[in-house]
Amino acid sequence: MYRTHNCGELRITNVGQNVMLSGWIQKIRKLGAMTFIDLRDRYGLTQLVIDDKSDSELIDAVSGLGREYVVKIEGKVIERSSKNSKIPTGEIEVKVENLITLNSSETPPFTIEDDTDGGDELRMKYRYLDLRRNPVKEALMLRHRMAQEVRKYLDSKDFIEVETPVLIKSTPEGARDFVVPSRMNPGEFYALPQSPQTFKQLLMVAGFDKYFQIVKCFRDEDLRADRQPEFTQIDCEMSFVERKDILATFEGLTKHLFKFVKGIEITEAFQQLSYQDAMTFYGSDKPDLRFGMKFVDITDSVKGKGFVVFDSAEYIGGICATGCASYSRKQIDELTEYIKKPQIGGKGLVYIRMEEDGSIKSSVDKFYTPEDLKAIADKMKAQKGDLILLMSGDRKKTLTGLCELRLEMGNRLKLRDKNKFAPLWVVDFPLLEWDEDVKRFFAMHHPFTSPNPQDIPLFDTDPKEVRANAYDLVINGVEIGGGSIRIHDKQLQQRMFEVLGFTPEDAEAQFGFLMTAFKFGAPPHGGIAFGFDRLCSLFGGADSIRDYIAFPKNNSGRDVMINSPSPISNEQLKELSIDVKKA
Amino acid sequence: MYRTHNCGELRITNVGQNVMLSGWIQKIRKLGAMTFIDLRDRYGLTQLVIDDKSDSELIDAVSGLGREYVVKIEGKVIERSSKNSKIPTGEIEVKVENLITLNSSETPPFTIEDDTDGGDELRMKYRYLDLRRNPVKEALMLRHRMAQEVRKYLDSKDFIEVETPVLIKSTPEGARDFVVPSRMNPGEFYALPQSPQTFKQLLMVAGFDKYFQIVKCFRDEDLRADRQPEFTQIDCEMSFVERKDILATFEGLTKHLFKFVKGIEITEAFQQLSYQDAMTFYGSDKPDLRFGMKFVDITDSVKGKGFVVFDSAEYIGGICATGCASYSRKQIDELTEYIKKPQIGGKGLVYIRMEEDGSIKSSVDKFYTPEDLKAIADKMKAQKGDLILLMSGDRKKTLTGLCELRLEMGNRLKLRDKNKFAPLWVVDFPLLEWDEDVKRFFAMHHPFTSPNPQDIPLFDTDPKEVRANAYDLVINGVEIGGGSIRIHDKQLQQRMFEVLGFTPEDAEAQFGFLMTAFKFGAPPHGGIAFGFDRLCSLFGGADSIRDYIAFPKNNSGRDVMINSPSPISNEQLKELSIDVKKA
Repeated sequence: MYRTHNCGELRITNVGQNVMLSGWIQKIRKLGAMTFIDLRDRYGLTQLVIDDKSDSELIDAVSGLGREYVVKIEGKVIERSSKNSKIPTGEIEVKVENLITLNSSETPPFTIEDDTDGGDELRMKYRYLDLRRNPVKEALMLRHRMAQEVRKYLDSKDFIEVETPVLIKSTPEGARDFVVPSRMNPGEFYALPQSPQTFKQLLMVAGFDKYFQIVKCFRDEDLRADRQPEFTQIDCEMSFVERKDILATFEGLTKHLFKFVKGIEITEAFQQLSYQDAMTFYGSDKPDLRFGMKFVDITDSVKGKGFVVFDSAEYIGGICATGCASYSRKQIDELTEYIKKPQIGGKGLVYIRMEEDGSIKSSVDKFYTPEDLKAIADKMKAQKGDLILLMSGDRKKTLTGLCELRLEMGNRLKLRDKNKFAPLWVVDFPLLEWDEDVKRFFAMHHPFTSPNPQDIPLFDTDPKEVRANAYDLVINGVEIGGGSIRIHDKQLQQRMFEVLGFTPEDAEAQFGFLMTAFKFGAPPHGGIAFGFDRLCSLFGGADSIRDYIAFPKNNSGRDVMINSPSPISNEQLKELSIDVKKA
Repeated sequence: MYRTHNCGELRITNVGQNVMLSGWIQKIRKLGAMTFIDLRDRYGLTQLVIDDKSDSELIDAVSGLGREYVVKIEGKVIERSSKNSKIPTGEIEVKVENLITLNSSETPPFTIEDDTDGGDELRMKYRYLDLRRNPVKEALMLRHRMAQEVRKYLDSKDFIEVETPVLIKSTPEGARDFVVPSRMNPGEFYALPQSPQTFKQLLMVAGFDKYFQIVKCFRDEDLRADRQPEFTQIDCEMSFVERKDILATFEGLTKHLFKFVKGIEITEAFQQLSYQDAMTFYGSDKPDLRFGMKFVDITDSVKGKGFVVFDSAEYIGGICATGCASYSRKQIDELTEYIKKPQIGGKGLVYIRMEEDGSIKSSVDKFYTPEDLKAIADKMKAQKGDLILLMSGDRKKTLTGLCELRLEMGNRLKLRDKNKFAPLWVVDFPLLEWDEDVKRFFAMHHPFTSPNPQDIPLFDTDPKEVRANAYDLVINGVEIGGGSIRIHDKQLQQRMFEVLGFTPEDAEAQFGFLMTAFKFGAPPHGGIAFGFDRLCSLFGGADSIRDYIAFPKNNSGRDVMINSPSPISNEQLKELSIDVKKA
């Protein structure tokens, strides 16, 4: 037997009890005639105390201990003289009567503390030690809690969890597929799924009605920071539904998670923004709505005053930063530098200061009279003490630049609070994207995404104006999930393929088995998928997903702990009927 | 909007309500002036009725319908004149006022009925249609229920569900690994996990204390019937535990599943059998304990009577089949043929009939007096009316033969009831297996399996007698799960590697990162893994796992629905730096 209690559960009510604990040595301190040990396990810390006058065997055992040794102790719970209100076990300690070293430990390569001295690579190499640290352990416990609550909610709504296969088929456009050579079928390959999209649609054809799965997906793309070759989705699909049914169901899921994981009750309905409005007012299809500073378009009000920059601009607009009239020249220069960074590409910043004394000062006083500036300020609903920041140029680029400026101001004004959550649905995305290089349309989502019913006539007249019956869930500027109502009608699907420039043969080659399935009574259906890693890190208040994944890979797709990928033997290659090409 | 109710929920209390339903057409029958339609969805069947005197648009719509068409109807719930007590909606029907065809269907290649006319290959090819059939749909709903209950139980016991990686590292003995070429690391490969064994042990080193995961595993082996290249495990590991703790926890899980999924309350503790006893009394390490017929060893009682077959046998033993004295010559000949089949390899069968009149008849009357036979019968506790069946020869082979004979008798006597469940733990497996070909020991489980503590001294004197601290959960003759206490002590691990003939370099090459991890304070730990597909099929009363997997592969590892595996393009091969070898 190793323990009667864990290291997080003893309280003042246990005083007088004989207990047995097992765990890791967090810290050893000698104080006069007493030795204090913090014993740690997943559940918490308990202070052990050993008197110098204990029997010599115990004294010897204690003297040999070091950080991260694993021990089992027996002793009596006593009340502490100096209590520690910071930990739940802080009112007691255990007077050790017997101690057995279960395992020793070499000195860890970094400290096992909330703030460690270990760098990223070292922490990844010894991930099992990093996982002992509270912030990482808690991230994974949050993930566990999230997964259980997702299932609890969806199960209560009659969803069935179905495991779809991992060894599937590579598609002709599967450039980002990971593939698996088949030993039994030489020269042939499986592919790992980038998502279970076709299988969940097949489950709807099968009449499963409501499906979900928390499932690993795989994408072999060049990794940017915070992308992983394997990632996890909450994947869902429903039959006999319209968009509003799906939004209601998954708004419900999101509220359930906030309530039962974060203790935050959201009663009001999530805001909905069209893609068009999101771009117009926030310059992004995933706006952070924790704060305002909506863009105001003043293109029509400021031309013809001799300011060439504005006169030649397709778009002029800006934001009003409450209470920032006091920004110094230096602060405004910083902002100008910020938006001029190559990845943002802004040309410059015009400011209008609404001074506390009622006067208005701007960087374009030369061209605009105080009345002109007042008119702009009114349009932007600026008050005394506010700072107006304007950008201009090509419409699309300027909106993107303003988006970055707005987020930067949000950061500076500390409006992007990690404990505040602003969920919204972005809807009515364009269905099609025109690719100027190959002169054809591409599906923005995928070719089975249904158009908005009222936009179907536009297929013939103005395809790029057709809106998709698609939706994204955005929280705090992060795209958490997305999906669409699918096409279930053969004629409409045919029309869609035509617009996308597929011949019937292309369509058959790429989507054959799904097309065949659709001939046998496909119900109206639609679905959504959430990025589970991202959702967990959002709930945990972190910017990176890495600590929400137990064993992540680095930016070269490498697991440095197990040193994978790695070469395989010639026998293996031979069995698989493949050769490695020499570089 | 598509429905106000599903097709399984309307009852007599809904009579008079206007409802909207959507679903598939199961059947259309014309009866005089009425047309009856069975409308089906996942939840059930509802009878629709259309009067010939309805408006012509409705009549037209109905006349165009066929099997598996998808429709939406509106109508009024009415009481049926002739009720159907076999279905929950059997007291009502819906008088249709409006019908819209949502999708048509080609004639399915097999009937969508509980007993279908479709053969295996056809059902696999159109798996989405097969999934519409009740038995297959219910198999997957059972699987869903099982998964939720597994999680509910383990979560309540403080287990944390952690996702371990799918893209891992191939090991030198990884002959059965599926591998994945890395595009970013040319010439290098990931492997898909055969189990998360090392990762769950690392999670114990990390202090996670209790881990579980319902996880896909992969094994590239030649497929026998009912093996799948990808399969699902309930994978678990615990720290600071002894064998009894693990058995108690997972006996609890099993009882929870029986109670909440099958409604069967098991109150008594599961039986425990040593591997030795299992082999001695049932000739198998996974005995079916739904019935008795324990073997009785009579080797010492029957020699020296002139019957050469017995006199020369290493082992003579048998079973007593209650009430089978009336078996005809033909029936006994059938049994003899059965055990003589090449895959069993028995030499012959001796019988002793305990006639109802008290006389005893046997196939060896020539050698044994009635008193001799009576003595055997007493040893075997045979009663009037019973039939004793004896086999003899090499001990190991005879025990295996008797095992098959016993199971066959169980079948004939209908003692292997699918609704009866007999769980047991088999414990104390041998730790090591001697391989005569390469003249060395192999680990029966894996090299981290701990020996029984009291057997450690035998390492030096008689390694093959060392028992493993391992256990299997067996239900109804099926191995449902297995696991062991792991070695956490460096010296013992060293000793184990020596016995297995590993040099320190071999050990380092194969298990390096785990060995390194163990230097930093590994706790005592152990675990278990259950075959989830098998567990589901056992609960469902099926012999095959295939219908408990949504999209299974056939015996060549092929998914005939999506036609995978398949060749990939030369561009893909080039990107992955591999070539396909020509045969």
